Amino acid sequence: MTANSFHRVVVVGGGFGGLQATVGLRRAPVELTLVDRRNFHLFQPLTYQVATGALSPGEIAYPLRAIFKRQRNTSVLLAEASDIDLERRELHLRAVAGVPAPTSIPYDTLIVSGGSQYSYFGHDEWSEHANEVKSLESALMVRSHILAAFEAAEMEQDPERRAAWLTFVIVGAGPTGVEMAGQIAELARDTLRHDFRSIDPRQGRILLLEGADRVLTSFPPSLSRRAERSLKKLGVTPMLGALVVSVDAGGVTVKVSGERTERVASRTVVWAAGVTASGLAARLGELTGAECDRAGRVAVEPDLTLPGHPEVLALGDMVRVRGADGTPTVFPGVAPVAMQQGRYAAKLVRSRVRGRRTAPFHYRDKGNLATIGRAAAVADIKGLKLSGLLAWLTWLVVHLWYLVGFQNRVLVFIRWSVSFFTHGRGARLITGEAAEAGAEAGETAWPR
Amino acid sequence: MTANSFHRVVVVGGGFGGLQATVGLRRAPVELTLVDRRNFHLFQPLTYQVATGALSPGEIAYPLRAIFKRQRNTSVLLAEASDIDLERRELHLRAVAGVPAPTSIPYDTLIVSGGSQYSYFGHDEWSEHANEVKSLESALMVRSHILAAFEAAEMEQDPERRAAWLTFVIVGAGPTGVEMAGQIAELARDTLRHDFRSIDPRQGRILLLEGADRVLTSFPPSLSRRAERSLKKLGVTPMLGALVVSVDAGGVTVKVSGERTERVASRTVVWAAGVTASGLAARLGELTGAECDRAGRVAVEPDLTLPGHPEVLALGDMVRVRGADGTPTVFPGVAPVAMQQGRYAAKLVRSRVRGRRTAPFHYRDKGNLATIGRAAAVADIKGLKLSGLLAWLTWLVVHLWYLVGFQNRVLVFIRWSVSFFTHGRGARLITGEAAEAGAEAGETAWPR
Repeated sequence: MTANSFHRVVVVGGGFGGLQATVGLRRAPVELTLVDRRNFHLFQPLTYQVATGALSPGEIAYPLRAIFKRQRNTSVLLAEASDIDLERRELHLRAVAGVPAPTSIPYDTLIVSGGSQYSYFGHDEWSEHANEVKSLESALMVRSHILAAFEAAEMEQDPERRAAWLTFVIVGAGPTGVEMAGQIAELARDTLRHDFRSIDPRQGRILLLEGADRVLTSFPPSLSRRAERSLKKLGVTPMLGALVVSVDAGGVTVKVSGERTERVASRTVVWAAGVTASGLAARLGELTGAECDRAGRVAVEPDLTLPGHPEVLALGDMVRVRGADGTPTVFPGVAPVAMQQGRYAAKLVRSRVRGRRTAPFHYRDKGNLATIGRAAAVADIKGLKLSGLLAWLTWLVVHLWYLVGFQNRVLVFIRWSVSFFTHGRGARLITGEAAEAGAEAGETAWPR
Repeated sequence: MTANSFHRVVVVGGGFGGLQATVGLRRAPVELTLVDRRNFHLFQPLTYQVATGALSPGEIAYPLRAIFKRQRNTSVLLAEASDIDLERRELHLRAVAGVPAPTSIPYDTLIVSGGSQYSYFGHDEWSEHANEVKSLESALMVRSHILAAFEAAEMEQDPERRAAWLTFVIVGAGPTGVEMAGQIAELARDTLRHDFRSIDPRQGRILLLEGADRVLTSFPPSLSRRAERSLKKLGVTPMLGALVVSVDAGGVTVKVSGERTERVASRTVVWAAGVTASGLAARLGELTGAECDRAGRVAVEPDLTLPGHPEVLALGDMVRVRGADGTPTVFPGVAPVAMQQGRYAAKLVRSRVRGRRTAPFHYRDKGNLATIGRAAAVADIKGLKLSGLLAWLTWLVVHLWYLVGFQNRVLVFIRWSVSFFTHGRGARLITGEAAEAGAEAGETAWPR
């Protein structure tokens, strides 16, 4: 930090963690640059609703420049962080979407919040036949895929092939998997009920595969049981103790209870199982000697800094945090953890600029929420266990509250209200370059 | 028409014409099939608002199956009409989006409403460097393109190249061209005003090229002049009597007033000039001997049937309609024409099923509307010429009224109200497979 210039802070990633770190430094005497490879913040907990046509992309994404337009110490930079030079204190960049970018920018403090992506347990070839709900584009692809599967079933004469079109397999019964299964069930049972003439969409089979012996393992067992009951009532079939052996164009092969192997013919597989940390975590581990676990998460110090590099912080679901005894803790990969760590990072930088010290990061667990369907959810709030309508209303208020942008809140609230009363889903469009190209060139390839 | 089965009507195209034809037959004793290559009806007059981030795709598109779910005599078929066999009375189909489709379906009456697409005056190579606003996908591509151009300008150091990023060329000053120019101007002047740190988006140059000597040639000259004034006030530069000589990656070359050739360096060209009818029009001409004009529109009889084939009707902007004297009339390519013709086609079929006759199609011109920007529009309603706020309010009410689906109406109304008071645009996201792939693979190719 030179005397005649501001302290330069570079934040990588405009997700929940990076956003809070940037907001938290709005009045600090620093020069801030927020680097993201997309030009918007995505409210990721609701992407699954885009994937099932309940919401439109613009309703859960908000431009980063719009968020920080009045924050004069902050610049937004559209680019991808490709590497870090710890010696020269430079972040290396790569251009995205054809927009020119500098090859590197200098920092005095670097805050890395790179997030995670889905992993296929070493079977990357499975990703060719499975769909995931992570980015907006992937959610739109899942949406087109699910809707086109019903269309195909309507046209298919062969009963076996028709059944495969109407079988939806969701791998992983964490919150995302449970939410996707519930939404597909509601789509089939309510929304599409009268849409077709040859098929009854209610005949759709929705299988939720989970390796553990219960759904939502991050919740207390009693809530897992209630969630399972709600899922069954919606028409979802949970398959517990089920390990995926292979995923291909015709379906999945599953090993159940460690013995018998079962084949499920399905044209739609949604992957919601393991995640792996952003590649930046592994790179930071390589550069600093900090240890990475199997999911690629780098172990940071109790104050979120990298060992030997107090000027570099990392946070969110790409890190584990060492406690006072040196053991790294894995916090759940949810928005509140990233948000609290982002706020902590901002506080640490503010303190340092003033020459003060900060106590280690402490996570305040405010509770755990997962929604299953209409008026069905589970909540575990500091030991208070809720389910059903009350949990669902809690979920609704919390999600609306945290949704960035007032207008989006209103739009989502209206969409949800209308859906609740009409069982409708306005945004069930089959779109994307594949659908459009197919429509024009008459292609018959099944979109991934 | 056999005695033991219903009269089979096949409608091609779920645009304004096909939709009205299908709705108009809801109580007729017919067996209806609506064929479209997309699974939704697109409210095309508002696609330009998607292209500038004011609206989200789901807000101006509505699933066809949802529209006709309660219309029990109607099936929706997701497929592309590839050919017509007039002898066997069969429509040939091609599968789209990987959804299986029968190779053909039989009809007793065929109603073809295939629409039109943009044409490049025989220079198809221009389409590689120009963007159009027709399908949802193309609108999203234009949106990503425009927003990325501002991002690129923000990063560009070279003043000349920066100016090219900030120059937006719209070709064609019909309603779509005028609306796009107005929206880009508002985006630059209002919405993005405080978003950047190196550039002032208000420096953006928006050129509206038109071959004729005035904008909006379908309106009376006095309204053209008012529209021109409104455009200039917004910051748009209309270039009249300007013929495009070439479009390439670096910009456009224009011949002005038939003499001097001018080069405009620009990275964003939006094409809103000529249209050409769906290929189905030419095919119908070939099969029946009906004459096609330069824009590919087939000439149909006064009752919209094909010469010698009273069982085949064609309508919308793919046809011209013969008058009593045999001269074909080109009606404007707007929604009201297609809607009235669709309703007429339904009436004709209803009459025929009852063994009655119908008078020739008669177009009732209810007026002409074009919007320019906030509180600025022109309207020509049966000789009554409106401009400014009153015309804009008329435009607003008419468009909300015709927007299919109650929920969409409410959502669009809210978006517009918020935009009006905040000058904001919620949906300005850079998305699409190109943006996503680029973000992941670090590609630097400028998306088309």
